[in-house]
Amino acid sequence: MCSLIVYYPMSDPPQAPRSILSKKTSLDLDAVFQYTSSNKDYTTREVVTRHEYFDERTTPTMADNNFKRLFHPRSVTVIGVSHDLSKGATAFLHALIKMGFSGPIYPVHPHLSEIMGLKTYTRVIDIPHPVDYAIIGVPASSVPEVIKDCADKGVRFAQIFTSGFHEVGTRQGAELQRKIVDVARGKVRILGPNCMGVYYPKARFGFDADHPVQAGNVSFISQSGGLAINFIERGASECIWINKLVSIGNACDLKVTDFLADFSTDPETRVVGIYLEGLRMGEERRLFNLIKQMAPIKPLVMWKAGHTEAGARAAMSHTGSMVGSFEMWKFIIRQTGGILVNNMDEMVDVISMYLRAPLPEGKSVGIVAFGGGTSVTTADACTSLGLLVPPLKEDVQDSILKYVPEEGTFQSNPVDLTGWILSPRISRDVNLLVGNDSRIDALIYIFDIDFIVKRCQLLGLNTERLIKGHTKSMLDVKKGFRKPFLVILQKTKDDLEVERVRLQIRTELNRIGVPNFPNIERAAKALSKLDEYSRYLSRVKS
Amino acid sequence: MCSLIVYYPMSDPPQAPRSILSKKTSLDLDAVFQYTSSNKDYTTREVVTRHEYFDERTTPTMADNNFKRLFHPRSVTVIGVSHDLSKGATAFLHALIKMGFSGPIYPVHPHLSEIMGLKTYTRVIDIPHPVDYAIIGVPASSVPEVIKDCADKGVRFAQIFTSGFHEVGTRQGAELQRKIVDVARGKVRILGPNCMGVYYPKARFGFDADHPVQAGNVSFISQSGGLAINFIERGASECIWINKLVSIGNACDLKVTDFLADFSTDPETRVVGIYLEGLRMGEERRLFNLIKQMAPIKPLVMWKAGHTEAGARAAMSHTGSMVGSFEMWKFIIRQTGGILVNNMDEMVDVISMYLRAPLPEGKSVGIVAFGGGTSVTTADACTSLGLLVPPLKEDVQDSILKYVPEEGTFQSNPVDLTGWILSPRISRDVNLLVGNDSRIDALIYIFDIDFIVKRCQLLGLNTERLIKGHTKSMLDVKKGFRKPFLVILQKTKDDLEVERVRLQIRTELNRIGVPNFPNIERAAKALSKLDEYSRYLSRVKS
Repeated sequence: MCSLIVYYPMSDPPQAPRSILSKKTSLDLDAVFQYTSSNKDYTTREVVTRHEYFDERTTPTMADNNFKRLFHPRSVTVIGVSHDLSKGATAFLHALIKMGFSGPIYPVHPHLSEIMGLKTYTRVIDIPHPVDYAIIGVPASSVPEVIKDCADKGVRFAQIFTSGFHEVGTRQGAELQRKIVDVARGKVRILGPNCMGVYYPKARFGFDADHPVQAGNVSFISQSGGLAINFIERGASECIWINKLVSIGNACDLKVTDFLADFSTDPETRVVGIYLEGLRMGEERRLFNLIKQMAPIKPLVMWKAGHTEAGARAAMSHTGSMVGSFEMWKFIIRQTGGILVNNMDEMVDVISMYLRAPLPEGKSVGIVAFGGGTSVTTADACTSLGLLVPPLKEDVQDSILKYVPEEGTFQSNPVDLTGWILSPRISRDVNLLVGNDSRIDALIYIFDIDFIVKRCQLLGLNTERLIKGHTKSMLDVKKGFRKPFLVILQKTKDDLEVERVRLQIRTELNRIGVPNFPNIERAAKALSKLDEYSRYLSRVKS
Repeated sequence: MCSLIVYYPMSDPPQAPRSILSKKTSLDLDAVFQYTSSNKDYTTREVVTRHEYFDERTTPTMADNNFKRLFHPRSVTVIGVSHDLSKGATAFLHALIKMGFSGPIYPVHPHLSEIMGLKTYTRVIDIPHPVDYAIIGVPASSVPEVIKDCADKGVRFAQIFTSGFHEVGTRQGAELQRKIVDVARGKVRILGPNCMGVYYPKARFGFDADHPVQAGNVSFISQSGGLAINFIERGASECIWINKLVSIGNACDLKVTDFLADFSTDPETRVVGIYLEGLRMGEERRLFNLIKQMAPIKPLVMWKAGHTEAGARAAMSHTGSMVGSFEMWKFIIRQTGGILVNNMDEMVDVISMYLRAPLPEGKSVGIVAFGGGTSVTTADACTSLGLLVPPLKEDVQDSILKYVPEEGTFQSNPVDLTGWILSPRISRDVNLLVGNDSRIDALIYIFDIDFIVKRCQLLGLNTERLIKGHTKSMLDVKKGFRKPFLVILQKTKDDLEVERVRLQIRTELNRIGVPNFPNIERAAKALSKLDEYSRYLSRVKS
């Protein structure tokens, strides 16, 4: 009954699947899946034990899932609310009101008549108007009854915030989850349980009162509610705005591939991110086909978690997920043009760079830095992360020497601007020279904020004016060639004034669309990953 | 003439030295050095070409270098000053005055009679008092003449800030550097050229007016002035205070091993950090012997830069260094008990943890986290970086369930505190339970600052009081067992209020000696490196 998902400790991976994988040059999912499904040796006892509780009788996926009323419901009911913001689904109700959701909201409470100025109803079936979407925050044992009410009422989508189902690892929890699916089947589609639900700022529909109402072109699927929130907030800090986001939790009905299918054809989505712990059984093939279809049009950036034994154990307790072999994942994602990332930094960085810069056409970077040690160690970091740092062309080096004197600096690549970095004009001109060198595919500029702030204080310069000059110069550089231009906003001091200046520059760079990073490692990783995607596109298009 | 230093592009390492290295189980430096020095194939043309300019006739190292008057001179002259803080050595003069250097300071200027309220002299030889230390910031071509004056005057140490010597890669630059050594020989010892010099806060002696005057027990040697400043400022942000620091630049006379010898026997130095690009010829054996002698008493943390082809090229332009084979470095540093790091984050993190926590006695970590996704991904990150995340003992898990309910959380390891993290008491008690589990060697606690700030705002709690409660709890946890206790101060939002709270907690944790990190990767790396050092100590002591 293990079907297609294989689990084993990463410390002791079996040899056979690897040999299948390494021998193949093109993707043959059948061979991979058949091998893993037929070979029981790779199933650990823990998974077999838990597996018997796992619900397999899921609602078949509709070919034409229509999520219009999930992301943009005409009306919403919230069940399990009180006056205490920290309990049940109350924070959801608060979020809808504060975000300015435009449709009617119907709170449900057994005896209160009003909450947050809204009339409440005793049960869902008592609401005298049509309801598209239900948010459920009642105790786990009461959820089946509420779902039955939703089905009777004709609610289209029910999102279950409550936890205490399959993920707790008990027979009781698994049975309760199965019961929900049974009660809902064919009438109401379920999101969760154990999830935060939907964030769709265009409709001012979300789950956190503080989340932005500004909409964008990134869509995100998360198996973790916390990391969904994390992505929204990190995104907002980077001026990366979201089109559609779903937190799917245990995914007892609606699952990763249902949403990926929707996002892949959505003209308002330019890039899709996924935080994934494990798939539902039988979902792999659909996932990989979707990524493959999608990759030539828009990238999928995937953070596949639970790829170590301890992570897998935690994933099982978190969303009841069996995580699968990471070796297999890596192989298949690469073959289908997906981009694998290892943490939230990489997720945000790759998306930011994809949205704001052309794809690189190679791995050779030019570096304009501040300081000798920083130049040496930046070159080390780039090379260690798979990039190339070739010497610049002789005539470019000669031209650079017209701006910065030979003594105390260098110009071969990296170029050390030393104190000349203070001048927006010289910085711009040197960056343009390096960026236009035909030997390089991308330009990285290390902008040292501590130095700028310190010099302004020491020499009595106007910080605001200088920063304005620099961000203007960076925009000129971005426009000066069709290659990625990445800025490292380097900060050493834990100082509120330096942080204020950093945030000011960062906000402006995000506004004008210059990808920026706090350190060289993050920029180099994002560039490497997009270079890999770029080469995939060249292969499939040629 | 290549002697002991071998240079080759990392992309194409020779096989022979590797085979020597991998076959040896104990350290045989003779075999390694003899092999590399006799085998001319490993010398690239570039190095040979540059090598002919390289000064070999350096002053022989004194067996008993006495650096008392270098770190704590009784009087200082500053040559090459004006009223312009951004020119020559003027900023050094400003720094001495502002830091409150207690001895007399004699500025030298050809015609001004007073600078910054101090009487100036036309030449060093005109100063009518004894001078221990000279800071030189005149143009490169004038340096030999000034050094001659220093020698005639009886100045003990001359530090040359000026660049434009061996590092520019021209015959002229190399000859100028050789000339300095010739002129100074036997009379005045030289620090640099192309360096920032000495920082010794006990004597209020340093090179930057803003650097702290608080002294500590970390000593640092840096071949980069910029990274020396970076270390001082990063250290200050972490409440890591410095005993002695030198920036040695091109190291034409005084070199890495001279200072390491001093620091290794200095009772006021508990740990030594080095940022190194390359050694002087013949210095390797002494370095490795020093590390080996020192390792059982105090650790050496080394950042060896220029380990890629591009980094090596930059190092040559920066300090005229030939960087050597990184494979050989890694092997030898490990054999001698040194700790190799790859960037400034790792340098600061390892030192912070060494100073503030007992050494780990194994690789098994307990994790107390906030949120399901964070728990899964933290376990992944720890395991990927070589740590173990074993399930906690059954009775510990049962005890945890007395604090946090089973639904929506988990307790096997990681432990997900969920919203209970808000309570300082519950956080403390759960951390103590996990920390005292005999299966784990270190405890990592993920403290989510965004959540705390947000809850305080939402529920109208007193942020200051809550933070105080939490830092008090963390101190209780630290005292609750003899194992490393590491706190991750997790922050998602780019928000000044969240940053303010983070800095407040961080300052308090640094004050009470709880190692803290901005993300799990940095904590896991520091722990791994100190575990390796701990195992080295067990081996050599048994």
